[in-house]
Amino acid sequence: MEILIINGPNLNLLGKREPEIYGAQSFEEYLETLRAAFPNLRVSYFQSNHEGALIDKLHEAGFSVGGIILNAGAFTHTSLAIADAIKAITSPVVEVHISNIHAREEIRKQSYLAKNCAGSISGFGLQSYALALHFFNPQC
Amino acid sequence: MEILIINGPNLNLLGKREPEIYGAQSFEEYLETLRAAFPNLRVSYFQSNHEGALIDKLHEAGFSVGGIILNAGAFTHTSLAIADAIKAITSPVVEVHISNIHAREEIRKQSYLAKNCAGSISGFGLQSYALALHFFNPQC
Amino acid sequence: MEILIINGPNLNLLGKREPEIYGAQSFEEYLETLRAAFPNLRVSYFQSNHEGALIDKLHEAGFSVGGIILNAGAFTHTSLAIADAIKAITSPVVEVHISNIHAREEIRKQSYLAKNCAGSISGFGLQSYALALHFFNPQC
Amino acid sequence: MEILIINGPNLNLLGKREPEIYGAQSFEEYLETLRAAFPNLRVSYFQSNHEGALIDKLHEAGFSVGGIILNAGAFTHTSLAIADAIKAITSPVVEVHISNIHAREEIRKQSYLAKNCAGSISGFGLQSYALALHFFNPQC
Amino acid sequence: MEILIINGPNLNLLGKREPEIYGAQSFEEYLETLRAAFPNLRVSYFQSNHEGALIDKLHEAGFSVGGIILNAGAFTHTSLAIADAIKAITSPVVEVHISNIHAREEIRKQSYLAKNCAGSISGFGLQSYALALHFFNPQC
Amino acid sequence: MEILIINGPNLNLLGKREPEIYGAQSFEEYLETLRAAFPNLRVSYFQSNHEGALIDKLHEAGFSVGGIILNAGAFTHTSLAIADAIKAITSPVVEVHISNIHAREEIRKQSYLAKNCAGSISGFGLQSYALALHFFNPQC
Amino acid sequence: MEILIINGPNLNLLGKREPEIYGAQSFEEYLETLRAAFPNLRVSYFQSNHEGALIDKLHEAGFSVGGIILNAGAFTHTSLAIADAIKAITSPVVEVHISNIHAREEIRKQSYLAKNCAGSISGFGLQSYALALHFFNPQC
Amino acid sequence: MEILIINGPNLNLLGKREPEIYGAQSFEEYLETLRAAFPNLRVSYFQSNHEGALIDKLHEAGFSVGGIILNAGAFTHTSLAIADAIKAITSPVVEVHISNIHAREEIRKQSYLAKNCAGSISGFGLQSYALALHFFNPQC
Amino acid sequence: MEILIINGPNLNLLGKREPEIYGAQSFEEYLETLRAAFPNLRVSYFQSNHEGALIDKLHEAGFSVGGIILNAGAFTHTSLAIADAIKAITSPVVEVHISNIHAREEIRKQSYLAKNCAGSISGFGLQSYALALHFFNPQC
Amino acid sequence: MEILIINGPNLNLLGKREPEIYGAQSFEEYLETLRAAFPNLRVSYFQSNHEGALIDKLHEAGFSVGGIILNAGAFTHTSLAIADAIKAITSPVVEVHISNIHAREEIRKQSYLAKNCAGSISGFGLQSYALALHFFNPQC
Amino acid sequence: MEILIINGPNLNLLGKREPEIYGAQSFEEYLETLRAAFPNLRVSYFQSNHEGALIDKLHEAGFSVGGIILNAGAFTHTSLAIADAIKAITSPVVEVHISNIHAREEIRKQSYLAKNCAGSISGFGLQSYALALHFFNPQC
Amino acid sequence: MEILIINGPNLNLLGKREPEIYGAQSFEEYLETLRAAFPNLRVSYFQSNHEGALIDKLHEAGFSVGGIILNAGAFTHTSLAIADAIKAITSPVVEVHISNIHAREEIRKQSYLAKNCAGSISGFGLQSYALALHFFNPQC
Repeated sequence: MEILIINGPNLNLLGKREPEIYGAQSFEEYLETLRAAFPNLRVSYFQSNHEGALIDKLHEAGFSVGGIILNAGAFTHTSLAIADAIKAITSPVVEVHISNIHAREEIRKQSYLAKNCAGSISGFGLQSYALALHFFNPQC
Repeated sequence: MEILIINGPNLNLLGKREPEIYGAQSFEEYLETLRAAFPNLRVSYFQSNHEGALIDKLHEAGFSVGGIILNAGAFTHTSLAIADAIKAITSPVVEVHISNIHAREEIRKQSYLAKNCAGSISGFGLQSYALALHFFNPQC
Repeated sequence: MEILIINGPNLNLLGKREPEIYGAQSFEEYLETLRAAFPNLRVSYFQSNHEGALIDKLHEAGFSVGGIILNAGAFTHTSLAIADAIKAITSPVVEVHISNIHAREEIRKQSYLAKNCAGSISGFGLQSYALALHFFNPQC
Repeated sequence: MEILIINGPNLNLLGKREPEIYGAQSFEEYLETLRAAFPNLRVSYFQSNHEGALIDKLHEAGFSVGGIILNAGAFTHTSLAIADAIKAITSPVVEVHISNIHAREEIRKQSYLAKNCAGSISGFGLQSYALALHFFNPQC
Repeated sequence: MEILIINGPNLNLLGKREPEIYGAQSFEEYLETLRAAFPNLRVSYFQSNHEGALIDKLHEAGFSVGGIILNAGAFTHTSLAIADAIKAITSPVVEVHISNIHAREEIRKQSYLAKNCAGSISGFGLQSYALALHFFNPQC
Repeated sequence: MEILIINGPNLNLLGKREPEIYGAQSFEEYLETLRAAFPNLRVSYFQSNHEGALIDKLHEAGFSVGGIILNAGAFTHTSLAIADAIKAITSPVVEVHISNIHAREEIRKQSYLAKNCAGSISGFGLQSYALALHFFNPQC
Repeated sequence: MEILIINGPNLNLLGKREPEIYGAQSFEEYLETLRAAFPNLRVSYFQSNHEGALIDKLHEAGFSVGGIILNAGAFTHTSLAIADAIKAITSPVVEVHISNIHAREEIRKQSYLAKNCAGSISGFGLQSYALALHFFNPQC
Repeated sequence: MEILIINGPNLNLLGKREPEIYGAQSFEEYLETLRAAFPNLRVSYFQSNHEGALIDKLHEAGFSVGGIILNAGAFTHTSLAIADAIKAITSPVVEVHISNIHAREEIRKQSYLAKNCAGSISGFGLQSYALALHFFNPQC
Repeated sequence: MEILIINGPNLNLLGKREPEIYGAQSFEEYLETLRAAFPNLRVSYFQSNHEGALIDKLHEAGFSVGGIILNAGAFTHTSLAIADAIKAITSPVVEVHISNIHAREEIRKQSYLAKNCAGSISGFGLQSYALALHFFNPQC
Repeated sequence: MEILIINGPNLNLLGKREPEIYGAQSFEEYLETLRAAFPNLRVSYFQSNHEGALIDKLHEAGFSVGGIILNAGAFTHTSLAIADAIKAITSPVVEVHISNIHAREEIRKQSYLAKNCAGSISGFGLQSYALALHFFNPQC
Repeated sequence: MEILIINGPNLNLLGKREPEIYGAQSFEEYLETLRAAFPNLRVSYFQSNHEGALIDKLHEAGFSVGGIILNAGAFTHTSLAIADAIKAITSPVVEVHISNIHAREEIRKQSYLAKNCAGSISGFGLQSYALALHFFNPQC
Repeated sequence: MEILIINGPNLNLLGKREPEIYGAQSFEEYLETLRAAFPNLRVSYFQSNHEGALIDKLHEAGFSVGGIILNAGAFTHTSLAIADAIKAITSPVVEVHISNIHAREEIRKQSYLAKNCAGSISGFGLQSYALALHFFNPQC
């Protein structure tokens, strides 16, 4: 089963941005840990700061992969176009967030994407991605 | 490590309410599956339709158990008192929802609890509880 | 046919609170008048100031009685949990109010319950309960 | 005792509009059933799609009849002028609705009329009119 | 110079409605006082409870009379169509109100008409009409 | 195929109101141009400033004509009753506007009618009516 | 009978500010015209750009003069303190505005003062003051 | 004179919750200080996390004690039912808060209770209770 | 005369997405039908899921082509930048939508683009594009 | 210890304004009672209807006196500048109100000042000032 | 060329208020630095905590000086009267703020003044004033 | 010291769009003037209509250049993603606008970016960029 992880704007800075706070580990490094922990899943990865590129990727993969894990970053709260793309494709999409979006400013409490997703996971740090993989690899 | 699962109002009807839709399995039965899947966790359970009883339980357990998984049902959206209780205790609390609360009516998009919780999981059916247990029992 | 009347918070004070305005008759006394006027209905009664107790009662009776007449008092405007309970059960629920809730302050114009009820009756004083019984005992 | 029933816009289509849903019975036919069930009341009837005609009728009858049953249809939610007319006259007015207006779109939850009416009944189908007649013909 | 006074819904009840409060004088009687006080103006009068009839009248007179004094009653707050009619015609329109609309409920603080009128006068009782006539018959 | 064009309030002033801006052509004259351009359609016409008359006309024609083109003018933004009438009838209704209602004040951006119409056309001047006729007379 | 006219902020600039638009006449000059037209009234005058000074003046005169004509300028829309002062005194206060405040930006549609005033006059240019004097010097 | 102090949800945690911030003193201990300082008042005490229990207590004591000091905690901002209970009883109720509710999040600025209370005191820490007792034991 | 049709995000999925509902025809195929029906217009076509690419295209073509037909999809409701681009160019732009945007969720009722467009057409399915072409190729 | 009491707009009218309701006692007279009841505090007093004068006074005293009791009257609800002044100084400020501001109109429920004050006391009549003095002169 | 700097409420406390944060330099001292840096400009200065005094000053200088730099402090967000004064005068006004008003609470994001000013500068500390002087002394 | 100027959507049209209003000078030409006026700063330049390209550029330069001057055009009001990018990088960013965004429509008064910027400058035409350069090149 193939699972595609898509990261949106500014998530390419993980490991570079304030490493004393966010850690010096890049997402690519964490990805290796994930792949090791879920050997029966093929996990691919895509990141872009371009809303259009995220939509293109959802179209390209969204009729064939077994599942998509999407952290759309700030686009979560402003992009109706990504929401429409999620609705149009057939692969189930799980929305994840590293931080607890409900503990932040008002605008981040609204998600255009959530209502078209299979489910939402937020606030568990990088572990949010691992929980999403558990969904696609259920034990119970 | 002890984990307490707390279910709020109307969740006692699982298995009784519209079984052709929600299934004939009660939460107590599902609990056995969970316990079997996470043998290294001691999982206890409490349900009440009384907001005050949920607060009492959070106070009683919230300074000693390793983690709390809370599905407060409709109180999620109306109870500032439960939100205060979560903030007052020291055990980390994970908010879970069976349905995708973002795909429902407007009032259910507001959560008083989320900002005081370690994280939020919604929309994965009963599997939401399993994902929360994975958080307390991390593989990566 | 059994009909259950449920009264919510503060309605236990009828007959005690400002009797020069509301009259010296308690709800229990009025209940006798109702039972006499509708001899072919078995009318039972429950009152509580506890939201949880109202939910428990709705669960207990709501899969067997022929109908429920509910005056949830202030919970009408704040309790999503009672609204969910009404939706979960199978007995039809009629919402009643003694006063005209539309002639009162803004918050009382919003009813969480109404959309899950068979119908709403408000403003007819204690006679609101009688009209609800007529619904369960139709002449035309 | 004379009771006037006033129906507002689009209610003349009962029996004609989607008869497989709303039934093939016109309001005029139902009126005969009502009159038979309440032989001690003289029940007259008026319908118009014109807001002004409804106001004229309220003025004409509203200082002499024993009661008015008003289903103002969509004007319920937009006509402050009808609300003023109800306040100006001396006959008590009962607001009725066939459907449960609280289960419909947002705009239909606001009633300009309710605060000037003796009471409100909504959601009981055509039986809403019968319940209103019971108010004017009380048993208890 | 011809001045047309137009009264909207429910204003035909002056003298009939609660005479102990509003007085027993009808608007027609007051009109005689006005005409006597302003002998150099020809003052005509129209009243209707029909929004459409008020628009028809504005169209009919609004390209020829010297001025229009309009008390649109409740339509002031709900009729964009009358506002458009005032904008379309060439005679200047003065908005008047008997009561102080700012001391009443929230909805009456919004006037669709005011922005298309030459000016607004409210709160002076029937004298509001006299002040409007002074505008068309200026001393300074 | 018969198509009925219905114009609402103030549209009778076309050709009379500010002719240097709106032109000296009345809608009746433009109608002749339309009929000539669509010889295979029978185009009838109705105009009224009365909301009730527009509803009456929709009821009268709305179960028999092939299509209705409705410019409800200001009622577009205030009349829930016309919206209900459109929903009740079986002929498809196309909403048209001469001016671009989105380039005008806030209130004109809300249309009660649009959601019950087959489609909406606004901003093309009188040509908006011609485009609506093309919808009923499709080439592709 | 003594009438006090009070002008608020920026009204001292009349005659100085954009004279090609507002005219070269100061309010003091217009005051002479008013006094000549109402010889039986003693008309005094006060202007300040200081909210506190306006309140002091209302207190000083408001228990003795026959009436006050108040153009509070921008304070109309922001000063609850002036509103309280009007309510505290016994002389009747008439609110006037030179321009039509309803044809201006949103904030100017709200008046803190109006609900405590005998009445409101707006949009008649300087003539607004004359109409207010007519109220204190009624002909009919 | 008997004074009843009622504490709502989570206030039972005083002395236990973050003692380095809130101190190690429980409310029961502070109560002894209060009783010593006001020897001529009989001060009783009740605490519950159950909204219904607070209402029951208000009903039970509210027709006999000389005064009630109520810190309803989070229910202050969400419980219309407690507000109704305060209105129904005859003993005067003083609302107190330990923290300054106006310096906290938006939801805590709204109090359902305040408008039915004799007065409100907030922000003085535990001393808020002492100030409320001074109200019932006035020196001037 | 050259007309450019621009389609925004997700419209590239026509013919691929749920073909049993939306049909198996791609937009490119429909384009051939349009070109055949309007032989005297040169119709070019551009689609992108990138907001920036749509702006670039509007800049490139918007000073030379005879007209632009724009279906901006979800960007209609979120892109002020496209709205600014439409305002900056000189070719007239017609906004089209396949579905009736007024019959969908709240966010889709707001269009940033409409106020800068020559006109708006929505709800006629693919025929919306044909109606827009009629605007550029008028018969009357 | 020196305590400064500052009263804002319209509070100079105490004793003069509606003495049958508010009493014939001026604040200066009440001040004598306060001083007698708190002999160990030096209580000074300042009143002004000028927002600027209140700010000047807060600046002048706010770095030296032991405490300030401020009843800013209507400025409570409109003056961000006074709020900033309270924040800038070092003496603690207690906000007091004679009436219960929560039982009055909506605008009076918002306090710009409260969040910068040590605490708030409202609704106890003139006794509100005495309670504030107790705060500065604590018994327990 | 003469430039007038006007500072509003609480800005007189610079150098006195929390000097460890804001520095020990008063605005008057900084003014000397500014004058030295812009020798070809005559820079005068005025400060007041009185809204009315700021308006008086704007009137006095606003028809003669070459430019005005205005930091209205909290009045920026509450004073429509100052906004009107800026509009009435002929000297261009530049709005400055020491702190970044957009990074503070909601109320400070609204500026009544900005729309009448030549431009706005905020967030650069005292350097904001220097940037405004550069505007009046342009290099490019 | 290197300063990067970034221009967002539609700003590439300067010199091309309505040259009689905006002038025939392109931004590239103005850039030469800026560079000449600030010879001790190295000023580089980037423009794109793509939100993603702006974010990429901020990431690329934002950890090395001495300062960034950003005119994000319409993205100012809609892009939370750019706001996040500004917060993530270490170079200080100054927000500039050519026009006074506060004098335009409501949506342009909200800036997602401002709260993460060192400061904001708007309304000075192209000179806004020069003022921003003065900030990075301070004289006082």
